[in-house]
Amino acid sequence: MLETSLEKALTTMVTTFHKYSGREGSKLTLSRKELKELIKKDLCLGEKMKESSIDDLMKSLDKHSDQEMDFKEYSVFLTTLCVAYNDFFLADNQ
Amino acid sequence: MLETSLEKALTTMVTTFHKYSGREGSKLTLSRKELKELIKKDLCLGEKMKESSIDDLMKSLDKHSDQEMDFKEYSVFLTTLCVAYNDFFLADNQ
Repeated sequence: MLETSLEKALTTMVTTFHKYSGREGSKLTLSRKELKELIKKDLCLGEKMKESSIDDLMKSLDKHSDQEMDFKEYSVFLTTLCVAYNDFFLADNQ
Repeated sequence: MLETSLEKALTTMVTTFHKYSGREGSKLTLSRKELKELIKKDLCLGEKMKESSIDDLMKSLDKHSDQEMDFKEYSVFLTTLCVAYNDFFLADNQ
């Protein structure tokens, strides 16, 4: 069976994390700087987000309060984004 | 700015849900049958999963216990899958 588009989506979520997490400090977590780069380069909304909003986002997602985002925290972030995308989708299709 | 691969991934997660959720009953939720079809057709692992495992999965994800999976419950399911994909990725790269 070939990789489906949903599986490709999951793979992209994993590889995007590792594209940034390996840059500085722990390879298994995103530092604040790495998260900022990910948001600015891999999400359109990143262009519109203020530095302070990204800081607030980091704080709200960083459940361990260690200034680092692990993969699970990152997944929760993407889930939140995904729910927002779905709301847009539903609004567009009404 | 063009759509990035991460944004495409989020869009795929949304459109895959709606590809199935509109088939029977509420258009905003996946029935057990719709979830089974999604897993069997859009995830390789679906081919290997037993009917009973899919039933167990549905039960564990269905927080409202209404035999329907809404978008938020589906997102949690994908997050869990994503964390599992990441574990495979890390094991492969060791």
